[in-house]
Amino acid sequence: MVEHMIINTKDFKIFDISMPISYNMPVYKGLEYKRPIISIDGDFSTGSSYETRLEMNLHTGTHLDTPKHMIAEGYTLEELELNRVVTHCRVYDLTDLKDKITDKDLMKLDIKEGDFIVLKTRNSFEEILEKDFIYLDKSGAEYLTKLNIKGVGIDALGIERAQPDHETHINLFNSNIMILEGLRLKDIVEGEYMLSAAPIYIPGAEAAPVRAYLIK
Amino acid sequence: MVEHMIINTKDFKIFDISMPISYNMPVYKGLEYKRPIISIDGDFSTGSSYETRLEMNLHTGTHLDTPKHMIAEGYTLEELELNRVVTHCRVYDLTDLKDKITDKDLMKLDIKEGDFIVLKTRNSFEEILEKDFIYLDKSGAEYLTKLNIKGVGIDALGIERAQPDHETHINLFNSNIMILEGLRLKDIVEGEYMLSAAPIYIPGAEAAPVRAYLIK
Repeated sequence: MVEHMIINTKDFKIFDISMPISYNMPVYKGLEYKRPIISIDGDFSTGSSYETRLEMNLHTGTHLDTPKHMIAEGYTLEELELNRVVTHCRVYDLTDLKDKITDKDLMKLDIKEGDFIVLKTRNSFEEILEKDFIYLDKSGAEYLTKLNIKGVGIDALGIERAQPDHETHINLFNSNIMILEGLRLKDIVEGEYMLSAAPIYIPGAEAAPVRAYLIK
Repeated sequence: MVEHMIINTKDFKIFDISMPISYNMPVYKGLEYKRPIISIDGDFSTGSSYETRLEMNLHTGTHLDTPKHMIAEGYTLEELELNRVVTHCRVYDLTDLKDKITDKDLMKLDIKEGDFIVLKTRNSFEEILEKDFIYLDKSGAEYLTKLNIKGVGIDALGIERAQPDHETHINLFNSNIMILEGLRLKDIVEGEYMLSAAPIYIPGAEAAPVRAYLIK
């Protein structure tokens, strides 16, 4: 694990890896209640300032999950330490995979204990985000728990689909592995970065939106 | 301006400087429409996951403003470059001030061109946030525009009050100085830090919530 980074704060390169939030953005399974509703609380026709209002499900767009999302007694955002999500990370290119990410796919990578890994798939390029997105299957999640990693990010709106018992989420949560969903990785090259994925702070909530970015 | 920082990604210290978001949090002038509404889209009594929904005015809590907030033709969030808000910064202790921050108060500080400055006041300690908060007055804003700084953060829900023409906002926006509001600085000591204040990404909006933090 890399423990030191020298950051040139004038010239360092920041890569935004977040989804734009709008009513027409891709949402999980295309569900209507997942669509953000953006309205205006005031504009220059009624006053001297412009103010927008946002209503959204907290699993829409780029967001971090906590265990409460799938486990009744799981913890919520106030127990999240920011150094779990502001950390060194490794991006892996898995854009050749067609359906899902399994343990066999992950075994080919040099994932190390304590890593935060970010999985780039063809979700970042193709119109499959709402329905047929590439996901991490339960064998892959189980493999990651054995490696004792810090977190996993993916360019899907859910880290799994087609697994009714949510084994991927539950395996990861039970090992206190962070789950970061809804990343946009089209322009990101495989390699090491600093990740910032600090969710807005809503005590008691099981997820929150994140402006996620990488620094090279 | 410090241009290099060596960051130990294992041991570095992260200071959260964000307000918790809840219905009962302090809001600007105590206005009801500024209160966040948190509800449940689904829980374990109705399904196999727990999902929260949030509705809020985008100027509630810790947030970044863009010029559109006060200037009809001003730019919105899609034009914000993240290196404007992920940057070296200096925190100044102004906790001795009783009412507002003026040009004379700022002249005593060693503010340099290009700095992002964070102003710590007694707002971070006292129950004055909703009404009688310390603010940056127009003389202070004008002084900062002459210094050509990068941005200014403050522990108030608005960077000004009691100025009907919003001269502080408008002066800063006209000089493309970032405005970061709603910080919590009680535990932060005066000095240099790396600031991360990346707002969630809502194209077209004039503000957005931020999970702001400092790294020492």
